[in-house]
Amino acid sequence: MEKTNIILDGKSLTIEDVDKVARRGAQVEISQEAMAKVEKARAFVFEMINSDTPVYGFNRGVGLNKDRQVVDRYYEEYNRSLILSHCVAVDPAASEEDVRAILLARLNTLLLGYTGIQPAIVTMYKDFLNHNIHPVIPERGSIGEGDITCLSHIGLAMIGEGDVYYKGFKIPAAEALEKAGLKPIVLGPKDGLAIVSSNALAAGPGAVVLKDVEDLIDMADIVYALTMEGFKGNVTPLDPSLYPIRPLPGQAVSAEGVRKYLEGSYLWLPGVSESLQDPLSLRGASQVHGSVRDALEYVKKYMDIQLNTTEDNPCVLVDEKRMIACSNYEVTTWVLGFEMLGIALSHLSRIACHRTIKLATPKFTGLSRFLTPADGRVIAYGTIQKTFTSLDTEIRHLSNPATADYFSVAGEIEDHANNSPFVVRKTAKIIDNLYYILGIEAMHAAQAIDLRKATRLGKGTKVAYEMIRSEIPFLDEDRNLSIDIKKAYNIIKSKKMLQAVKEAVNKE
Amino acid sequence: MEKTNIILDGKSLTIEDVDKVARRGAQVEISQEAMAKVEKARAFVFEMINSDTPVYGFNRGVGLNKDRQVVDRYYEEYNRSLILSHCVAVDPAASEEDVRAILLARLNTLLLGYTGIQPAIVTMYKDFLNHNIHPVIPERGSIGEGDITCLSHIGLAMIGEGDVYYKGFKIPAAEALEKAGLKPIVLGPKDGLAIVSSNALAAGPGAVVLKDVEDLIDMADIVYALTMEGFKGNVTPLDPSLYPIRPLPGQAVSAEGVRKYLEGSYLWLPGVSESLQDPLSLRGASQVHGSVRDALEYVKKYMDIQLNTTEDNPCVLVDEKRMIACSNYEVTTWVLGFEMLGIALSHLSRIACHRTIKLATPKFTGLSRFLTPADGRVIAYGTIQKTFTSLDTEIRHLSNPATADYFSVAGEIEDHANNSPFVVRKTAKIIDNLYYILGIEAMHAAQAIDLRKATRLGKGTKVAYEMIRSEIPFLDEDRNLSIDIKKAYNIIKSKKMLQAVKEAVNKE
Amino acid sequence: MEKTNIILDGKSLTIEDVDKVARRGAQVEISQEAMAKVEKARAFVFEMINSDTPVYGFNRGVGLNKDRQVVDRYYEEYNRSLILSHCVAVDPAASEEDVRAILLARLNTLLLGYTGIQPAIVTMYKDFLNHNIHPVIPERGSIGEGDITCLSHIGLAMIGEGDVYYKGFKIPAAEALEKAGLKPIVLGPKDGLAIVSSNALAAGPGAVVLKDVEDLIDMADIVYALTMEGFKGNVTPLDPSLYPIRPLPGQAVSAEGVRKYLEGSYLWLPGVSESLQDPLSLRGASQVHGSVRDALEYVKKYMDIQLNTTEDNPCVLVDEKRMIACSNYEVTTWVLGFEMLGIALSHLSRIACHRTIKLATPKFTGLSRFLTPADGRVIAYGTIQKTFTSLDTEIRHLSNPATADYFSVAGEIEDHANNSPFVVRKTAKIIDNLYYILGIEAMHAAQAIDLRKATRLGKGTKVAYEMIRSEIPFLDEDRNLSIDIKKAYNIIKSKKMLQAVKEAVNKE
Amino acid sequence: MEKTNIILDGKSLTIEDVDKVARRGAQVEISQEAMAKVEKARAFVFEMINSDTPVYGFNRGVGLNKDRQVVDRYYEEYNRSLILSHCVAVDPAASEEDVRAILLARLNTLLLGYTGIQPAIVTMYKDFLNHNIHPVIPERGSIGEGDITCLSHIGLAMIGEGDVYYKGFKIPAAEALEKAGLKPIVLGPKDGLAIVSSNALAAGPGAVVLKDVEDLIDMADIVYALTMEGFKGNVTPLDPSLYPIRPLPGQAVSAEGVRKYLEGSYLWLPGVSESLQDPLSLRGASQVHGSVRDALEYVKKYMDIQLNTTEDNPCVLVDEKRMIACSNYEVTTWVLGFEMLGIALSHLSRIACHRTIKLATPKFTGLSRFLTPADGRVIAYGTIQKTFTSLDTEIRHLSNPATADYFSVAGEIEDHANNSPFVVRKTAKIIDNLYYILGIEAMHAAQAIDLRKATRLGKGTKVAYEMIRSEIPFLDEDRNLSIDIKKAYNIIKSKKMLQAVKEAVNKE
Repeated sequence: MEKTNIILDGKSLTIEDVDKVARRGAQVEISQEAMAKVEKARAFVFEMINSDTPVYGFNRGVGLNKDRQVVDRYYEEYNRSLILSHCVAVDPAASEEDVRAILLARLNTLLLGYTGIQPAIVTMYKDFLNHNIHPVIPERGSIGEGDITCLSHIGLAMIGEGDVYYKGFKIPAAEALEKAGLKPIVLGPKDGLAIVSSNALAAGPGAVVLKDVEDLIDMADIVYALTMEGFKGNVTPLDPSLYPIRPLPGQAVSAEGVRKYLEGSYLWLPGVSESLQDPLSLRGASQVHGSVRDALEYVKKYMDIQLNTTEDNPCVLVDEKRMIACSNYEVTTWVLGFEMLGIALSHLSRIACHRTIKLATPKFTGLSRFLTPADGRVIAYGTIQKTFTSLDTEIRHLSNPATADYFSVAGEIEDHANNSPFVVRKTAKIIDNLYYILGIEAMHAAQAIDLRKATRLGKGTKVAYEMIRSEIPFLDEDRNLSIDIKKAYNIIKSKKMLQAVKEAVNKE
Repeated sequence: MEKTNIILDGKSLTIEDVDKVARRGAQVEISQEAMAKVEKARAFVFEMINSDTPVYGFNRGVGLNKDRQVVDRYYEEYNRSLILSHCVAVDPAASEEDVRAILLARLNTLLLGYTGIQPAIVTMYKDFLNHNIHPVIPERGSIGEGDITCLSHIGLAMIGEGDVYYKGFKIPAAEALEKAGLKPIVLGPKDGLAIVSSNALAAGPGAVVLKDVEDLIDMADIVYALTMEGFKGNVTPLDPSLYPIRPLPGQAVSAEGVRKYLEGSYLWLPGVSESLQDPLSLRGASQVHGSVRDALEYVKKYMDIQLNTTEDNPCVLVDEKRMIACSNYEVTTWVLGFEMLGIALSHLSRIACHRTIKLATPKFTGLSRFLTPADGRVIAYGTIQKTFTSLDTEIRHLSNPATADYFSVAGEIEDHANNSPFVVRKTAKIIDNLYYILGIEAMHAAQAIDLRKATRLGKGTKVAYEMIRSEIPFLDEDRNLSIDIKKAYNIIKSKKMLQAVKEAVNKE
Repeated sequence: MEKTNIILDGKSLTIEDVDKVARRGAQVEISQEAMAKVEKARAFVFEMINSDTPVYGFNRGVGLNKDRQVVDRYYEEYNRSLILSHCVAVDPAASEEDVRAILLARLNTLLLGYTGIQPAIVTMYKDFLNHNIHPVIPERGSIGEGDITCLSHIGLAMIGEGDVYYKGFKIPAAEALEKAGLKPIVLGPKDGLAIVSSNALAAGPGAVVLKDVEDLIDMADIVYALTMEGFKGNVTPLDPSLYPIRPLPGQAVSAEGVRKYLEGSYLWLPGVSESLQDPLSLRGASQVHGSVRDALEYVKKYMDIQLNTTEDNPCVLVDEKRMIACSNYEVTTWVLGFEMLGIALSHLSRIACHRTIKLATPKFTGLSRFLTPADGRVIAYGTIQKTFTSLDTEIRHLSNPATADYFSVAGEIEDHANNSPFVVRKTAKIIDNLYYILGIEAMHAAQAIDLRKATRLGKGTKVAYEMIRSEIPFLDEDRNLSIDIKKAYNIIKSKKMLQAVKEAVNKE
Repeated sequence: MEKTNIILDGKSLTIEDVDKVARRGAQVEISQEAMAKVEKARAFVFEMINSDTPVYGFNRGVGLNKDRQVVDRYYEEYNRSLILSHCVAVDPAASEEDVRAILLARLNTLLLGYTGIQPAIVTMYKDFLNHNIHPVIPERGSIGEGDITCLSHIGLAMIGEGDVYYKGFKIPAAEALEKAGLKPIVLGPKDGLAIVSSNALAAGPGAVVLKDVEDLIDMADIVYALTMEGFKGNVTPLDPSLYPIRPLPGQAVSAEGVRKYLEGSYLWLPGVSESLQDPLSLRGASQVHGSVRDALEYVKKYMDIQLNTTEDNPCVLVDEKRMIACSNYEVTTWVLGFEMLGIALSHLSRIACHRTIKLATPKFTGLSRFLTPADGRVIAYGTIQKTFTSLDTEIRHLSNPATADYFSVAGEIEDHANNSPFVVRKTAKIIDNLYYILGIEAMHAAQAIDLRKATRLGKGTKVAYEMIRSEIPFLDEDRNLSIDIKKAYNIIKSKKMLQAVKEAVNKE
């Protein structure tokens, strides 16, 4: 469990922070300055109550009901109704990791003071995170533009209804609150809307996905470097002179990484490669991996804005003494980025698959067919090509866009959507498939290295090779390969190989 | 649990049978005549052993290795290697239901006597089904054209390796065999290939999916009929005179069903509908549902051939005393049908969504906004439109084709694929989403019927209405609707409503 | 120009007839019996005029306007307005061939007597066809469910407005009518709707597309047979014993065709093929081509119904003395079929591409790299692989479905669509790309045959080979291959090769 | 025709420059400094000739042939063969505008001195542009990674073979060269590769497409502003206070533009809008248009790098005295951007369609149904909704990705591709459809303004309104709307409205 607390102030949350809180149990604190803003905005809300200015979701209904005055002033009842009627999400429930990411993503944007939410609710988000109270949030049902159908389930838990995960069990929210010494929230004006009207369902898990993509590209570079050693690849395309003259940023990063992983490798010895030019999947790997980096940078840039700016409608402008209707819930910019990223990852998948095929092809490697240790007797890595092909086909399918598929709903008022949560989810699935694909490539690379009896490996690839071999022995006889594949998948997914290699190349 | 045993003879297996065996625990028997064919083919295989004719996968290797002679004649070792090296599938494991469907689908095609497999293995398939020994089969990794990467895991269990599900637990296959009093198989010539070289991974679960689609369309007709009563729809387009003059078969079936469900309904009273023509989603429902039927018929027709004809390569032609290489593993015809069916179901989804929106639209129904029982106070079915829209978006995404996405593998020999298992799986996901969508439509219809105080319902719709209301009360106050949605989903998915309505309309 | 007149009676139009009228200038006649039905229905319409029964589009408005009474009885003005306001289509203009197919498809369904259109208009359709007066119809703008936005442009020409193609020129309709000795139509009751409310824009060109697919599969079989001779392929998978035991209908047709084209070929000599099993793209070609046939049969079956049944709404039931609202415009069944067909053709494309690659691969053919006549000096068929890959990528893209992409229009009344015209158009584009791909495969096959010095060709393949070589000489030096490709494309597209081969194999 | 000459130096070419040269006939000059670099690189190439270092495509073959020594030193013959054998592209021919963009894009990257091409060829590119000699380039056949299959056709023209467009006619290249007083090129070492190995086929037209998208978004903002006036929309979401607190860059630009276009409009008067919150398609237009801007910025950033950096393989590093193999042809980064942009434009299309529907919906506008001037008599803008829906469906289809669809070619060496030309072309088609969609929205907006008798229009919208009305009169009676649509399309496509509005708002 992560030791350091993350201090939240609404303007400096990073995807690394989200990863720490969501997956490594980091605790959070709220900066005093931020809490003061929250309180100031709340005070302004109460000023507004007596005013006659109509405000959507505040002293007026929502959606098509927006033009109906909330006749009675019983805010609790109205806001409770709002929470309940918005609980329309469907299974499966978001993972606890994702719930933490969601809570965090919304908590941080509340801290900018544009919401007008009651401060006790803000504290409740923090308490949920720090007490590991994780509301059960069915993860499907939102079309983006505010994940109101799902985030409502957080509100439900806060008022002591519905269920939560707590210490490994699914229990009633009321019970968990009591155990943790917390009191249910009594909803006041604007609180219902403040809870539901956020993109946190997509943004929180989305931030975690971006962290994974970042790590994945690094791992792809490592595995590619290993493949180069198995293949006895030509390292000329990694030449540092090439990158400044065609300054696409991502490829320079990948090439530099690969050079580092391969530092000291036999590949740099003169005359090693007999091929003038390797297949594109090897020759252009830094470029294609780099293109995924370029796409990632786009999404990260805008996710950073998402995590650290207001997403409220109506938006409370305390200094201007105004509360105005707006479109702060719009996240199409970074949803488009996720779509692009999915397509980029489809390229990453295909190029890894083609490298793996090449490793098993004698005419390119000079090694045995399907990397068999005993031709004619051991079948080895023949059939496994179907495995990664099928995973790639799934990725190809997942990379089809979904963001613009919607129709008018809510009395034709809601006539735009971007399907942010679904787009994020399908990106996560692509990543998981890539863990398999890179794992299988790594299996091939290690086998090729062994068959080639290549001993002088790079500073980083040596570590990667050893990690593979510590769990997956050389394939000397046919065996149940699905076990090997699962191990390789876990080495990649757990990021163990990544960490070990990074440590190795960074120490001196 | 299903009482009647299904007798298998290789030529009369239906999708209903597969449903019974896979989901309702029906037991199977093998006809004597079929078993005789199996034995005759096996005898022929032993005749071939001493012959010099080279046969792929029999006295020659598979895949690119096809041209290598299996020098040693130790069939067990070779066939065990074949099974092991083909175990390359990845998670998740197929459900036990699907495993049963897979076992059954392969068992039946073995009974035609074109395989040459040892009879003890054939019996083992039957025993696995009847003793509920369900090999753990990771369900991903096949690109079709024989699901060799996954079906190998059945072979693994048969030789007493790997794991199986048995009485609710995942235990080693060897242990389960012992408990059930079965002996592991000793593999002989051609047995490895005979086990893996089949399309059962796609065909078995595919048959179950087709059963579900068939039921789903019936349920869509029922829910549409209910919607008609909630909507006070114009029944003119159901007029029986219309169907013979435009004889698309599916729409006639749907229209006839709907007329039956609505028998006795107030909708048939003169002058009920004030609308000359309802929105297309109501007016053309029989037609669109019927189009899904037409698409389904195509797939069923070819699935029937799949379940009841040989899929072996090489194919043993006992009477001709030949064993010849062929393409009997090709299933593109019905995979195309599944792709079409997915697109058809996307239409079914969209039209149901639009009907549901219409039910919530006062200008069409004359009822309250979002079917609220108390305008201004209860929000009711406003936000829920996002739920079904998001599920529909997923369906739209799933309906994208995947069958032709592949590249050359296995030394460029395997340069065609059809991704049958993935295409079947995505169809299953579409269906599951439709259970939600139809459930939500039914919730709306019942609410509209209540608000309209329509009392004289049809013979079938009355039953459907009552079943909804027995679990989901009238929405008089806002409540956590995700609970209602789940109940409605279960009513549809369990097919309880379907059975009850069918009984009601068929009795007399 | 086609000599025989096609006699139309509303119930026996075939896709071959549509091809003849659309592309080969066949003339049409209307059967007397059919014309009598038209007249009878018209008489009934006049009976209705004085009745009080409200009928959509007849004595009531259309679309959302359906509930408004047409106050004045000036039918001409109302129907002219209807035609004009429905002229909302956009470029490009349909080809003259397509216009003929459209006119024919609508004319035939009018002859069933369910429309109530004035007989003079029916005659005008015939006159347009027989005088080659082809209204300019912008081909985009329809979402199916009646191509009202485009067919209106036919009505425009009939009343002497807008433009037509006439003897190679685009001239005002009025002028063309005069030249042809025809008088503009004076619109009466229901005539406007009768003209626009049809699916002929999709159905007419769709029928032609189906004819092309049918021929295309035959050509794919021929080119595959030629490839077999260039490749020295193993003919075992064509063995007639195999097909009855796995009775998928299409593959039997393809295999039989291929056997016929290869009759007398050296491939049948004993011991010719050294390979136990060829790559799937060769071994399974009959199966995959057959799957396209199976898909085609589905579409043809329903297109046949489309061309020969009423598509009118409201539908005039003369015998029952009723005119009722209905959904006869629904064509989703066969639009789904076109989507499936597009995916099937994507398979056809990929398998042809892979065969072509194989022809250029020495390890499979034993011939030179890229079929060069002089290795090291002539580059030959290396780069051309990119050409067909890029055309295949376009086909893959075109094969994505579009039928279910729509939103509610026309005051939310039109809340279903199927995009039939667009789906047909994209199928036509796929076909055109396939003409290139098959042409390039044929170029490869001929070159391989020459390099192999294979002299004893099949009865059909000999003709195919000679036709290729009559226009495209042996590649002995590098030359501008785009010229060769275009010639090969024309040989395929013109169906010259198809006709010649069919003649050769069918004659005794 | 553009007056100013563009001076090229390899490092400062903008998409505006490409637009000027491609479409407005601007002439080009080459900077002396750049030409000096070209000459220096050429001198180095001749140094290399006598060296023994093998270099791909220079003293070695290309593709799979890369390992074969070019035995004879007859460079002309070898390079001519290379050009000819790479002429494998297929129809249609690129437009002359696109050819100019292609010539320019390649010319500029040659000027960096990394190619080693003979200077006379560099001059020939310039001469072709300045003499309007436009080689006929079939535009299909490239899968990206160097558009070698198509750019070869430029080389063909340069050596006086093949055809060109010259002064409006397609004539033999040799003839055009003579008329223009130019001499055919005699190819020397590396010249063939230098001509074909570039991404100019995608990059040149791609740059023009980006210019069009940039203008298109501005036009979408203008049309949206006009819609706001027709709709009497709520301008609150345009409030400048909102944008700095959610600093997505694109939306700030769009909102600022819209405020400017609406300067002085009646919409800013107090109490104008009766709606608290308009439908999302109006309320969130700046945000969604802004998201398209954000996506565009990504592509522009990398296109700028593409146009101004080397794309050569092998790459001549004169200062280092090396010529090395590399992957400078990789353009996946910006191809991904085009895919994202296509999806973004799909959003732009859908939101425009929904705004247009809203303009025709009385409950939102308070105006007549379908904006009819005479309810019950004039049908007006009802059916036209199908037109833009169908165009949007095409856009949705075009927005499906294609970049990662490829398979291994050229002896499995070319195992990556990105389909850059096709991706660019489909983006161009999306744009063209959007010209129609925005044109139709503008027609609606103007009609709504007239019906509303809104007289006080904004500074920019007034100009837009007048331009529409100068060509398309108020719809007072039903008429052939396809004529109006075409006019509106031309107003948008020609960018006349854009220029006029920009002038109006920028002048003081």
